[in-house]
Amino acid sequence: MDFALPEELRQLQEMVRRFVDRELIPIEMEAMDGPDLKPEIRLHLEARARELGLWLLDVPEEHGGMGLGLLGMTVVWQELARTIALPPRGPGIFGPEVRAVLFRLDAAQRARYLDPVLRGEKRTAFAQTEPDAGADPGMIRTRAERQGDGYVINGTKRFISHAERADFLQLVAATEPGLGTRGLSMFLVDMDTPGVSIARRSGTMMGDVTCELVLENVRIPAENLIGKEGDGMRLSQSWLTSGRLYQAARGLGVAQRCLEMATRYARDRVTFGSPLSDRQAIQFMIADMFTEHALGQLNAYRTAWKADQGTLERHESYMVKVSCTELGFKAADRCLQIHGGSGLSLDLPVQKMWRDARSFMITEGATEVMRVALAREIFRSLA
Amino acid sequence: MDFALPEELRQLQEMVRRFVDRELIPIEMEAMDGPDLKPEIRLHLEARARELGLWLLDVPEEHGGMGLGLLGMTVVWQELARTIALPPRGPGIFGPEVRAVLFRLDAAQRARYLDPVLRGEKRTAFAQTEPDAGADPGMIRTRAERQGDGYVINGTKRFISHAERADFLQLVAATEPGLGTRGLSMFLVDMDTPGVSIARRSGTMMGDVTCELVLENVRIPAENLIGKEGDGMRLSQSWLTSGRLYQAARGLGVAQRCLEMATRYARDRVTFGSPLSDRQAIQFMIADMFTEHALGQLNAYRTAWKADQGTLERHESYMVKVSCTELGFKAADRCLQIHGGSGLSLDLPVQKMWRDARSFMITEGATEVMRVALAREIFRSLA
Amino acid sequence: MDFALPEELRQLQEMVRRFVDRELIPIEMEAMDGPDLKPEIRLHLEARARELGLWLLDVPEEHGGMGLGLLGMTVVWQELARTIALPPRGPGIFGPEVRAVLFRLDAAQRARYLDPVLRGEKRTAFAQTEPDAGADPGMIRTRAERQGDGYVINGTKRFISHAERADFLQLVAATEPGLGTRGLSMFLVDMDTPGVSIARRSGTMMGDVTCELVLENVRIPAENLIGKEGDGMRLSQSWLTSGRLYQAARGLGVAQRCLEMATRYARDRVTFGSPLSDRQAIQFMIADMFTEHALGQLNAYRTAWKADQGTLERHESYMVKVSCTELGFKAADRCLQIHGGSGLSLDLPVQKMWRDARSFMITEGATEVMRVALAREIFRSLA
Amino acid sequence: MDFALPEELRQLQEMVRRFVDRELIPIEMEAMDGPDLKPEIRLHLEARARELGLWLLDVPEEHGGMGLGLLGMTVVWQELARTIALPPRGPGIFGPEVRAVLFRLDAAQRARYLDPVLRGEKRTAFAQTEPDAGADPGMIRTRAERQGDGYVINGTKRFISHAERADFLQLVAATEPGLGTRGLSMFLVDMDTPGVSIARRSGTMMGDVTCELVLENVRIPAENLIGKEGDGMRLSQSWLTSGRLYQAARGLGVAQRCLEMATRYARDRVTFGSPLSDRQAIQFMIADMFTEHALGQLNAYRTAWKADQGTLERHESYMVKVSCTELGFKAADRCLQIHGGSGLSLDLPVQKMWRDARSFMITEGATEVMRVALAREIFRSLA
Repeated sequence: MDFALPEELRQLQEMVRRFVDRELIPIEMEAMDGPDLKPEIRLHLEARARELGLWLLDVPEEHGGMGLGLLGMTVVWQELARTIALPPRGPGIFGPEVRAVLFRLDAAQRARYLDPVLRGEKRTAFAQTEPDAGADPGMIRTRAERQGDGYVINGTKRFISHAERADFLQLVAATEPGLGTRGLSMFLVDMDTPGVSIARRSGTMMGDVTCELVLENVRIPAENLIGKEGDGMRLSQSWLTSGRLYQAARGLGVAQRCLEMATRYARDRVTFGSPLSDRQAIQFMIADMFTEHALGQLNAYRTAWKADQGTLERHESYMVKVSCTELGFKAADRCLQIHGGSGLSLDLPVQKMWRDARSFMITEGATEVMRVALAREIFRSLA
Repeated sequence: MDFALPEELRQLQEMVRRFVDRELIPIEMEAMDGPDLKPEIRLHLEARARELGLWLLDVPEEHGGMGLGLLGMTVVWQELARTIALPPRGPGIFGPEVRAVLFRLDAAQRARYLDPVLRGEKRTAFAQTEPDAGADPGMIRTRAERQGDGYVINGTKRFISHAERADFLQLVAATEPGLGTRGLSMFLVDMDTPGVSIARRSGTMMGDVTCELVLENVRIPAENLIGKEGDGMRLSQSWLTSGRLYQAARGLGVAQRCLEMATRYARDRVTFGSPLSDRQAIQFMIADMFTEHALGQLNAYRTAWKADQGTLERHESYMVKVSCTELGFKAADRCLQIHGGSGLSLDLPVQKMWRDARSFMITEGATEVMRVALAREIFRSLA
Repeated sequence: MDFALPEELRQLQEMVRRFVDRELIPIEMEAMDGPDLKPEIRLHLEARARELGLWLLDVPEEHGGMGLGLLGMTVVWQELARTIALPPRGPGIFGPEVRAVLFRLDAAQRARYLDPVLRGEKRTAFAQTEPDAGADPGMIRTRAERQGDGYVINGTKRFISHAERADFLQLVAATEPGLGTRGLSMFLVDMDTPGVSIARRSGTMMGDVTCELVLENVRIPAENLIGKEGDGMRLSQSWLTSGRLYQAARGLGVAQRCLEMATRYARDRVTFGSPLSDRQAIQFMIADMFTEHALGQLNAYRTAWKADQGTLERHESYMVKVSCTELGFKAADRCLQIHGGSGLSLDLPVQKMWRDARSFMITEGATEVMRVALAREIFRSLA
Repeated sequence: MDFALPEELRQLQEMVRRFVDRELIPIEMEAMDGPDLKPEIRLHLEARARELGLWLLDVPEEHGGMGLGLLGMTVVWQELARTIALPPRGPGIFGPEVRAVLFRLDAAQRARYLDPVLRGEKRTAFAQTEPDAGADPGMIRTRAERQGDGYVINGTKRFISHAERADFLQLVAATEPGLGTRGLSMFLVDMDTPGVSIARRSGTMMGDVTCELVLENVRIPAENLIGKEGDGMRLSQSWLTSGRLYQAARGLGVAQRCLEMATRYARDRVTFGSPLSDRQAIQFMIADMFTEHALGQLNAYRTAWKADQGTLERHESYMVKVSCTELGFKAADRCLQIHGGSGLSLDLPVQKMWRDARSFMITEGATEVMRVALAREIFRSLA
């Protein structure tokens, strides 16, 4: 048994932490312009990331990346979540984010879609959610019908992040509508294909933008099917474990930063003749933030470690998602409360972390959905 | 014993509710322009309010108002808090909001300050909080020194709402710095007096703006002292009970609206083959929102009723502030969670109510300060 | 609107409180002998109750009682729950407890069953719950079959309080098994009827005893049917509102006493150089106990008042049961924690109140069942 | 990094689990006679433990024990806490429990006190707590005065477990009363020394007994001082980390068993036409029990592992105590609630585990004391 992070990850962690402390936190209140980084800041930060070797971290080595596993990525994600300098739902500054699906493309598809993404020439968005199919992919109504040497797609997608800047979509649609999730397939759809349009643009309270996409008689060639018909669910789920760990890591990072901000503020702020840090109400909040973070982080490392070893059981990814996103929000909420009136001010990052952290409990699977799924696994194995 | 609202208040409640439902909620997503209502909307709504007789509700009859007591105002505040159409911290649309202090002015002061406010010709702001004196007025450092026939004031005030639009301040300053809260006095200070400046403007996550004011050798005539020297604390506290009930009522209003939104969404939203309203996790949230609201509202009515009767004990206003602001935020948080991804969208009012409601737990006395004060009263009387 | 208890109830409250403070609390650690009062103590206390006029309080005046309504009984129940001197689930000392069902008997039945109970000559038990029918009377399997001029009953009843001392049962059984709750009827069954036996006797952690009853070919005359066939559910529910208010009132009484014990202990107990009452952790517990009690009590009074007026809606009795039993246990739990090691000791009443209060959240409808039922009513009316 | 238990501990865990499942759980409702095991059951179980090699597990090898470290003991304690067959605060059945202090004795003391204990010939009790010195050893008033070749001891000790059966005490007393904890010393005091008496015997709600001891002019020889004068605090603290891990492990064991009981009951119990396990309210309780247990256990293993490596920081033992005892009680409380009326019955172990688990949050440092101490360490290191 060994609870210490491997030395190379400890060093990576330190490097990213230093980068965040020195280059991101100092600019975090002014770095954004609407939902994205100011362009000159993005250019500068990406250049710095390349210099430091923090580029394409989780891309497999055969595709030119560093091949970092989930344990390593959990460490990195957590450190990055200590700042609000970057867009809350990406894109980040350590190279394009590539979902696992794109590594499943065949050679011809890779040349046209994956490689340009890795070179920074194309951008992509993931289009699965629909107005009536949020947590429940069995309700997907977007239809892809085989016609001649292609497919004709009709439907509506909602809450699609990054659609405005995307060159192509990874789109989930039903090829066999009667079969539920077994009838889903995944396609590559260029955004400039006739019939693809952005019907609505909605801001979120985290400051980013999601789009509603309408697909009306969108005709794509058959070679844009990823894998085979019916693979849609399996492909879309290849991101699930990573996605849950990603949200969990963000919760941990928020908790870490909020703990730092809260302890400093409580030490410095004097009311009624003594610093807040002398008050038990504050001490208890700090103690609980610290404890919850410590336990959550340890379990997140364990979960990532098991995933990297191929021994992760499904219920473990539910647990890590629920526990770390909840502790993240609770930490942000306590930090806000400790800051009093200052916590509500747009001059400080507290309120932004608080809003962001709240969304982690919903994105990639609301806590209620996770708890039900977890309970089912427990009943299967224990009862 | 009689737990039913008096008939005239029930009618007032219904009238305000109808007004909110028909004239405010339909425009609530577009009514604001930055921190205030769009001017044409304000004009229209104020005209409608006058037509309906909803004008100067809590102003004493001798000053031309309707003389509604705290029970009535609690009912009105609660109904108005069901919408985000109006600025979160005022000004509202039922006439200028006048703190009790202004009714304590002498005749000459009234002519120059109160009457123009009531006629809508002047606007005012309340300036007490300082960087080092939030919850603790004993730390107020702004100094008013008697010189000749006037006072010279120096100091800094923070978190001052409405300062930008104010014509004059109700300002708390120390005339006897060694005496703590007993050495405080209150002054009327015209904003255009030389030496008064707005040093900083800060947005809040609720969408409004607070200012930092600097007063540098600000010379005012002695007749601008309200009451006598040393009255500052007592005068400033004349608002406290109202202020706590106001925040409590807002919490109740948010809870009421969030309950309505959550039940409707849960009934209509179908996932995995059945409406959310069939799920116990949702049912429990709804049941708890409803129960907490019912108990909190009843106690708020009781508190306001006792205040109107002059029998309110101090600890009762702490209780109502803590319980109703906490239940308001919990309701908003559950409503957000029930809405899932939609709850995060700026297209719906949920996220705005959630942000607003969070601030009620801090404004006019953070819950921690209230709990300590409440406990002290309990130990005094019970132990 | 009037939030003050009517004068005659205030006087009753004071009288009962004084009785509890002077005659019950001083003996509460030694009054019980197993699950019941020591006989000499019972005799003495019942005599004192008669002297004070505290006898048959809730029995209708036409049956010789005081005809106190639910508001009055809520006040009395709450005061009595401030002590552990009495058996946790009865019988009390203010006369035999008579469920509403017995007042629905016809004249002949009254002469044989109700009147002897009121005179203290017979005792009764209520037998509805079954191994497979706890919260769900639709699952009742005990069968009463019409045969000739009587009924033959077969079945098993569980968790029956007071069965050992009862002379007769009020028994719920299915006369039309296919009809669910509409096929239930209620019978008077003498305990000495052949075929009635106590199969098992189980202690509870509250110190009382419940029995499992077996009915094997128990033959009773047709005139022992209460009302008509099919009335069983309606009759059994005639106690429901009272039962929920009773548990709620007990929660309030426990909370009240625990608040008194906790504040006194916190004031007197000095650790690390200062009394516990100086610590915020303790202050917050006290403040929350007090607030929850105040809100819960007010709502309980309102619920009872509405019930007495005949305007109570069903969901209101769910709310009062859930909120008051939960606040009662939370108060007891905080009181235990404040007492530290002493709280665990059988020398003090704290641990007993804590155990008792926990049961209120289960008895007469577990909180989960109540919340689901409440949510259903809310969806019916609000959504 | 390696999150798997070492193979030899995994085997030990399995062996103890099997022992508990086959030999303790089947007899757990009848094993006790008052506060201790029935003598014949104790004899039998101790014989079985010796057979299985489960004897003197944590006694250092040089004293004839197995020298198991804290990680191993945490595993064993946790498994044993899955049953209520054994006395809640010892003595267990895997050999006499020996606190670390006794291994610090000098050779002569060891021969008279430690060795007889290890051989089962003598029993001991630990006497530190006093009426006015619970969590705060600086308040210890028991006085040991040097007189000639011995000490004369006067004072009162409270909440002393096992005093009735003890042959000697490990007693903490002040040799330099002005110096606070630095003036404490520890002594070996034979129970039959004149002046030692048991003044009071108090049951606890967990079913065991603690004593109040009075020491009146108790004269002991100087060679019964352990270490030197002033060592008392340091010696008494040598148990602290173990003690906190012990309570934490008990919390985990209770949580584990309650999870097993709750899942089984929820699967089998049918109400309103479906098993409890289909209800989200139950599923959520189960999911949370499971998650909290998983995170708490992982952190407990980490804490024990660090202690065994000598790298444990003090705040880490506070965290493990708070988190595991709280999750243990929450699990027991949910298990009780899921069982409904059955959960209250003395026929099932649920209610006993629930009572026991509540005490873990108080024994060896109440959660409030732990949280304050933890917060202080955090402020020292983070702020």
